[in-house]
Amino acid sequence: MPDRLAPALESRDGSAILALAEELHYADLANFYAELDDDEDRDFMVQTLSPTTFSDILAELPDSLREEAINRYKPAQQRELLSALTDDDRVDVLQDVSEETQDSLLELLSTEEKELTETLLKYDEETAGGRMTTSIGRVTETLTVKAALDELRNLQDSAETLSRIFVVDERERPIGFVRLRDLAFASRDTPVRDIMLDVKETILATADQEEAATMVRKYDLLALPVVDESNRLLGAITYDDAMEILEEESTEDMEKQAGIAGEQSEESYLRTRILVHLRRRVGWLLVLGFLAIASGYVMIQFEPVLNSIFLLALFLPMVIATGGNTGGQAATMVIRAMSLGELEAKDSWQVAWKELRLGMLQGLILGLSLAATCLLLLPLLLPDSMVGLNLPHFTLAVSSALTIQVVASTLIGALLPIGARAIKLDPAVIAAPAITTIVDVSGMMIYFTTARLFLGV
Amino acid sequence: MPDRLAPALESRDGSAILALAEELHYADLANFYAELDDDEDRDFMVQTLSPTTFSDILAELPDSLREEAINRYKPAQQRELLSALTDDDRVDVLQDVSEETQDSLLELLSTEEKELTETLLKYDEETAGGRMTTSIGRVTETLTVKAALDELRNLQDSAETLSRIFVVDERERPIGFVRLRDLAFASRDTPVRDIMLDVKETILATADQEEAATMVRKYDLLALPVVDESNRLLGAITYDDAMEILEEESTEDMEKQAGIAGEQSEESYLRTRILVHLRRRVGWLLVLGFLAIASGYVMIQFEPVLNSIFLLALFLPMVIATGGNTGGQAATMVIRAMSLGELEAKDSWQVAWKELRLGMLQGLILGLSLAATCLLLLPLLLPDSMVGLNLPHFTLAVSSALTIQVVASTLIGALLPIGARAIKLDPAVIAAPAITTIVDVSGMMIYFTTARLFLGV
Repeated sequence: MPDRLAPALESRDGSAILALAEELHYADLANFYAELDDDEDRDFMVQTLSPTTFSDILAELPDSLREEAINRYKPAQQRELLSALTDDDRVDVLQDVSEETQDSLLELLSTEEKELTETLLKYDEETAGGRMTTSIGRVTETLTVKAALDELRNLQDSAETLSRIFVVDERERPIGFVRLRDLAFASRDTPVRDIMLDVKETILATADQEEAATMVRKYDLLALPVVDESNRLLGAITYDDAMEILEEESTEDMEKQAGIAGEQSEESYLRTRILVHLRRRVGWLLVLGFLAIASGYVMIQFEPVLNSIFLLALFLPMVIATGGNTGGQAATMVIRAMSLGELEAKDSWQVAWKELRLGMLQGLILGLSLAATCLLLLPLLLPDSMVGLNLPHFTLAVSSALTIQVVASTLIGALLPIGARAIKLDPAVIAAPAITTIVDVSGMMIYFTTARLFLGV
Repeated sequence: MPDRLAPALESRDGSAILALAEELHYADLANFYAELDDDEDRDFMVQTLSPTTFSDILAELPDSLREEAINRYKPAQQRELLSALTDDDRVDVLQDVSEETQDSLLELLSTEEKELTETLLKYDEETAGGRMTTSIGRVTETLTVKAALDELRNLQDSAETLSRIFVVDERERPIGFVRLRDLAFASRDTPVRDIMLDVKETILATADQEEAATMVRKYDLLALPVVDESNRLLGAITYDDAMEILEEESTEDMEKQAGIAGEQSEESYLRTRILVHLRRRVGWLLVLGFLAIASGYVMIQFEPVLNSIFLLALFLPMVIATGGNTGGQAATMVIRAMSLGELEAKDSWQVAWKELRLGMLQGLILGLSLAATCLLLLPLLLPDSMVGLNLPHFTLAVSSALTIQVVASTLIGALLPIGARAIKLDPAVIAAPAITTIVDVSGMMIYFTTARLFLGV
């Protein structure tokens, strides 16, 4: 269906666009708008759609496209657009525009809207307060069901969620919640108190958004109440915001582990400009590249060893790479377990003990496989290299190097993220690059040292 | 608060446990139960909690703990437990027990429950049908609001979601939905038709669960209707199931990219047994380890080059590692964009063109940095190595090797996942391991070939 938008736009067929906009989901409309390259195309879309319709699209647009989209409207239409946005989306949009635009847009709002928006703008974008909606239903426990429904009626269109209605005391503290279904089916004179359920979880407005989203997921919540330091109800994080946050955080974790720096771009991969991609990727490439010279330096120190038995080069990349692989596996497991809230600081010893045993098992399996390969296949595959080679000693050297490297790398991979968190560094950012470097250098040293030991070179 | 459970259990204080079970969220209770090591502790928990209370806990337990938990109850209690489960959780639980247990549990159900459960069991666990709930509200458009509410009243406690009530035609096809809030606030004689909204998205029961979850996220849905091939409404995927699915899939993607095989374990990192960890990790370690010998083999072929200018070893690990890093970055970006639904097959050329330019920019930056390092620092840091070395040629050799390696690896990293998907392989499983191997071998060849070219060795 979104395919019919392009021809309608090309032929400047306003009524066809309006009809399609009615049928399509605003997320698809936003995608379509974001993919438009032509300035006049965007202008025609904006001029055709009412500010109210466009408000839904605006909330779904990548941050960087928002300002220019808003500025295609005249102030009166901008006012309409801003009023149609939910409070959390309005704040989100205002956080993405320049200061002048923000100021001029704030002036368009009604006193009440402006006050609310300015309060919300004070919270950092990545906190529960910065992501919450304030358009929630709230009632007091002494109301009857009928009175509660009457109070909520005027929120019918504006509230972001009414499935959970919070019950507050006289100081606005959340003491429970009711499900809309219980209000809808209870007899009208039942007091709210009788159908109220416990609020088991709340979150501080200053808490990290990821913490809020994790609670929503863990406890299967529709809306998690957000409170201030005095436990007064400010708003709620809804399930759809939580889903968005969790996806963003997963993407960021993956990117960080691959050495991609900075904030995840809200624009799609294809829309993101090359220079933005470059800026996010080249930094770690440079750092890691120059750190890898350390590995080469170690190799140079062992020139005599390699020169006297050049066959050692055959398994050198294997030992180094296996360290990287096993360290990477352990780090991925531990980092993910930490971000799913499974691991606490007190579990460090347990992790270390688990990975030590696992590393030894892996090291033995890999070491024995390599030993078998050396003894059985080497004489067949590279018969020339056997001249003057003490095959049993050579086998012992390379396979024990592999075993040691695997044990060491597994431990390093598991413990570095824990260590990083202990000193308040982001495990995903620090661990992956550090692991590669450490494991490469240590692998090089282990390899040549065992060779010296067993081969006497 | 969960901290108070342990002492209560230790002193076998049943009433304290019951009181705490009332206060705590079932997700926390499930965590507590899963962490118990002692068989008698588990038994006491199960015997203390009613089957109805335990049903919520059971649904949150790791798959592998479910059967033994159920078998702690007598058949009459098992019946109670199973009836208290929502239909999708019941199916989920039955999928995780042995065949005999499944058969005997099915016999405990009422005819109606049994029939429904058997129908749902036919869908694969990882499809929309396998994850959907069938306890949803459905009404017809000719009903009045009053009649609709009366029909829905008996679902008040059993339905998993009533916030969205689906409107079906005489052949059970979804033609729209109503929000519970609109039912609650509309006048009682309004026809449902008048407050009905369009259903814009449905999903086939046989579709992959990830596709369903992605739609729920993209379109901010509370419940996505699931239909059969004749477009009849079967059930819905709710937002909380979608969130669970998305988290599972993100974890699996991360693990696959790190070369961790098989299904994500539902048990926490710490609870997962060592042999399970081992089985998931050691396979790729062996495969990748032995593939890395190819790299060593290339190195052996170039023995004369390395022997005549051993200083080449200084930058060899850097060139190899940088290829791995840049390939990994490109692959991570592309794989994530694919799993977020941003990239289609037709975008392949655009990706290739983008990454080619990006690779060239990165290659130039890295190559020039390395050239500057060689020319300026090498004579200072390793003066001895300058004897007989043609520094400009050496610089040209290593820095052009780095540039070529970066361009090649960026392209390989971006295109391999796309290629893997084109031949229906999982990009995350195939791409990451293949990239490491290919990039290591090609890096080795590029490095020594440029050395031969520019240094005449």
